[in-house]
Amino acid sequence: MNIYINPPRSDWDQLLARPSMNNQQLVDRVKPILAEVKAKGEVAVHEFTARFDGVVLDQLQVTEAEFEAAEALVEEKLKAAILQAKENIHRFHAVQWEPVQEIETMPGIACWRKSLPIEKVGLYIPGGTAPLFSTVLMLGVPAQIAGCQEVVLCSPPNREGNIHPAILYAAQAVGIQRVYKIGGAQAIAAMAYGTESIPQVYKIFGPGNTYVTAAKQLVSQEGVAIDMPAGPSEVMVVADETAPPSFVAADLLAQAEHGVDSQVMLVAQSESLAQAVQAEVERQVQLLPRKKIAQAALENSRILVTERTDDFVDIINAYAPEHLILSVEDDLSLGEKIHTAGSVFLGHYTPESVGDYASGTNHTLPTHGYARAYSGVSLDSFVKKITFQKLSKEGLENIRQTVEVMAAAEQLEAHKRAVSVRFES
Amino acid sequence: MNIYINPPRSDWDQLLARPSMNNQQLVDRVKPILAEVKAKGEVAVHEFTARFDGVVLDQLQVTEAEFEAAEALVEEKLKAAILQAKENIHRFHAVQWEPVQEIETMPGIACWRKSLPIEKVGLYIPGGTAPLFSTVLMLGVPAQIAGCQEVVLCSPPNREGNIHPAILYAAQAVGIQRVYKIGGAQAIAAMAYGTESIPQVYKIFGPGNTYVTAAKQLVSQEGVAIDMPAGPSEVMVVADETAPPSFVAADLLAQAEHGVDSQVMLVAQSESLAQAVQAEVERQVQLLPRKKIAQAALENSRILVTERTDDFVDIINAYAPEHLILSVEDDLSLGEKIHTAGSVFLGHYTPESVGDYASGTNHTLPTHGYARAYSGVSLDSFVKKITFQKLSKEGLENIRQTVEVMAAAEQLEAHKRAVSVRFES
Repeated sequence: MNIYINPPRSDWDQLLARPSMNNQQLVDRVKPILAEVKAKGEVAVHEFTARFDGVVLDQLQVTEAEFEAAEALVEEKLKAAILQAKENIHRFHAVQWEPVQEIETMPGIACWRKSLPIEKVGLYIPGGTAPLFSTVLMLGVPAQIAGCQEVVLCSPPNREGNIHPAILYAAQAVGIQRVYKIGGAQAIAAMAYGTESIPQVYKIFGPGNTYVTAAKQLVSQEGVAIDMPAGPSEVMVVADETAPPSFVAADLLAQAEHGVDSQVMLVAQSESLAQAVQAEVERQVQLLPRKKIAQAALENSRILVTERTDDFVDIINAYAPEHLILSVEDDLSLGEKIHTAGSVFLGHYTPESVGDYASGTNHTLPTHGYARAYSGVSLDSFVKKITFQKLSKEGLENIRQTVEVMAAAEQLEAHKRAVSVRFES
Repeated sequence: MNIYINPPRSDWDQLLARPSMNNQQLVDRVKPILAEVKAKGEVAVHEFTARFDGVVLDQLQVTEAEFEAAEALVEEKLKAAILQAKENIHRFHAVQWEPVQEIETMPGIACWRKSLPIEKVGLYIPGGTAPLFSTVLMLGVPAQIAGCQEVVLCSPPNREGNIHPAILYAAQAVGIQRVYKIGGAQAIAAMAYGTESIPQVYKIFGPGNTYVTAAKQLVSQEGVAIDMPAGPSEVMVVADETAPPSFVAADLLAQAEHGVDSQVMLVAQSESLAQAVQAEVERQVQLLPRKKIAQAALENSRILVTERTDDFVDIINAYAPEHLILSVEDDLSLGEKIHTAGSVFLGHYTPESVGDYASGTNHTLPTHGYARAYSGVSLDSFVKKITFQKLSKEGLENIRQTVEVMAAAEQLEAHKRAVSVRFES
C-alpha cells in the first residue's frame, strides 16, 4: 500500500479510482449459455453442469435425505453460530416492515401504501472453496420476513455432486426448501426463464463470479429484477491517533482476502499512523492462509494521509465506499456527516466482520461507487410497495376541478372525462 | 375490444399477453448518440438538438427571465391546480420518510438505518403536444422532500426553442432551478455523463419515447441508476353489476388515449355488463380529440367475462397491472386480496385520472408486468438507506464466538482475525 501525504484535491479522483471493470467479453461468452437454457431447459442445465462443474447429476434438486445428511455434518458450534446470526439478522430486518398508514390528502380522498412480498425470488450462492452460507442468511432471512411464497436457491455442486453442508443447513434454518445444484450463468438462466422443475422467479439476488454477474446483468435487461449491480468488494478505513494500528491493519486485510480485485483504502490522520498500519499490514498478511490473494489486493490499495477532519468527510463522500470503518474518537459525530456509503462501522470495536456475519445488518451492499444511488439489500428488496386510493363522491368533487384543469392542459381529454362522466346525471 | 366469456385458465396467458417490445434496433440507433455526447459534450448535444428538434439554441439552460415569462403565460386556474396537486403529492410522500430506529440486536450491539438523499438526480420530461407537467410534480416533489442537492431537469425544446410554460411553472413550484432544453437520447446522455455545464447525475427518472427508454436502459448498464424499466402504459378495470358502464368506459378510454401501444383490459362479471361497456366505449371514443390513438390502443385490448370473484383475483395477479381499478361493490375486501399491481383505485368514484394528477399517490408506476418485482416511484426512489453499527467492547465480546466460528467455516481467516486481534493484549 502506497502512502500519499496530504494529496491535493485535484489528485483525489485518481487516488480514489477503482480498478476498471470491462465485461464485454464475458457478456459475449455468457449470452449463448442463457440462450441454450432458455431454448432447451433442464437438458442444457445438465450439460453445462457436466462441462463447468465436472459432475453428472441425476437430479438437480437437493432431496430431504441430503438436507438431513448435511445437518449431521455441520458441527454444533457452527450451527449455534448460524442460528445466532440468523436471530440478529431477523431482529434488524423485521422492524423494516412498513406498516400501512392511511393518509387523507383531502377530505374524502384516502391514500395508502401496502408492502407485499415479491412472490418468487431466486438466490444465488457461490460455491468453491469458501462456502458463503452467511449469504444464505442475509438473503433468506428478509425473504422469509417478507413472506415470499417461492424461494429458490441455486449453488454449484462440488466434484462429488454435493453442496456444502453449511449452505444446506443455513437454507433449512431460513425455511428454504427448493435448493438446486446449479452454478454459474446456467443457474441465473434457470431462475430467470424457469425450466421443467425450476420455477421462473421475478427477482434474482446474490453474489457470484464474473459469469454470474454478467448473466444477472443480461437477464435484468429482459425484465427480471436483480438486487443491484455488482463489483469487487471494498473497504475504506478512516483512522485517527486513537486507532490501534493492529486493529486497522486487521480490518484492511479482512477485506483484502476477499479477492485479488478487492480494494482497501486507508485515510489516516498522520504519517506516523500510516506507517504503523503499513508495518502491521505487512506483518499480519504473513499469517494468512489467503496471503497471496490479500497481497494482490493490496496492490490496488492506497493510504491517504490528511490531518483535516473535513477532508475525511469529503474523501469518504467522494469515494462512496461499500464498507466504511470510522476508527476515530468522535465516531458518532463523524458518522453524522457521512452521506454516501453502503454500511458504516463506528469506533474501534466494530470491525466489518461483525456486519459481514452476525450483528444483524445486511452484508449485500452497493460497491464500486454504486452507493451514490443504491442501498444495500434490506426487507425493501423483497417487497413491492403498492399504492391504494379510495375516493368518496364528495372526495372526487373536492378534487374534480384540479384534475380536469390539469388533464385539459395536458391535452388528455379522456382523462378529464373520466372524472366529469361521474357527475353527469 | 373483443369479449371472451369464461375463458379457461389455459387461455389466460394468451389473453393477458402484452404487445411485445423489441428494441434491439433502437438500441443500435441510440448507442452512437450516447457515445457522441460522451466524447464531445455539449457540442454534440447542440448538434442533436438541431437535428432532432429542428432548433438551434444559443443556450441550453433555461434562464431566470424564461422562468418569469413562463409564469406569466400559465393561467391562474392551472397554477392553482398545479399547487393543489403538489400539496397532495407532498402530503402523501412526506410520511414515507423512514425515521432512524436504533435496534440493539444483542447487548452492546447497536444497529440502525438512515435515509440520505441521492445527491444528484436527473429528471426527464417529454415534450411534444401533451406537456407532461404532472410528471414534474411526481418526480420533483419526492426529490425535494428527500433533499437531493442537485436536481437537473431536461425537456425537449419546441421549434421556437422553448419548453412549455406549464413545465417550467411546475419545475419552479418544486424548487428545480436547473432546467435544460434537451430532449431524447442526448438528454439522457448529458445527464449520465455530464457535460461542460450539466452535472453528471447518479440516477435518472422519467418517461419518454422509445429512444429515451433505450438510452436509459443503456446508461443503466454503465452504472447510472434509473427509476425502473419502461413499457407502454396499461390499465385493468374489474367491474361487477354495481359499476355504471359509462364510468368504466371512460376509465378504459383514459388509458387508451395515452398511446397506440397502451393496453386496456376489462374483467367484467357478466356478459350484459361487458356489452354495455363495449357500447359505451364505442359511443364515448367518438367524442375524443385523440380518438385515433384510442381506437388503435383498443385493438390491443380485451374484455374477459367471468362470474367467479376468485377468478378476479387470479386474473389480476396473473396480469400484474400497472393501474388497477376495482369498480365493484366490495372494493375494499377485493383490494385486500390483490398482491401484484402498481397502483389500485377502489370503488366507483376513484378514476385513475385522480392518481395520475392530484390525489397524492405517484403516477410513475411499473408497467408491462414489472409490478411483480418493482414498486412505483416513491420517496424511497430518491434516497439511499445506509446502515450503521456500533459495538462496545462488551458487545464485540458477546458476538465474538459467532463471528469467529462462521469466518473460520467460510475459510476467511482474516475476517476472524479482525475480531480476535481486538482481544490480544
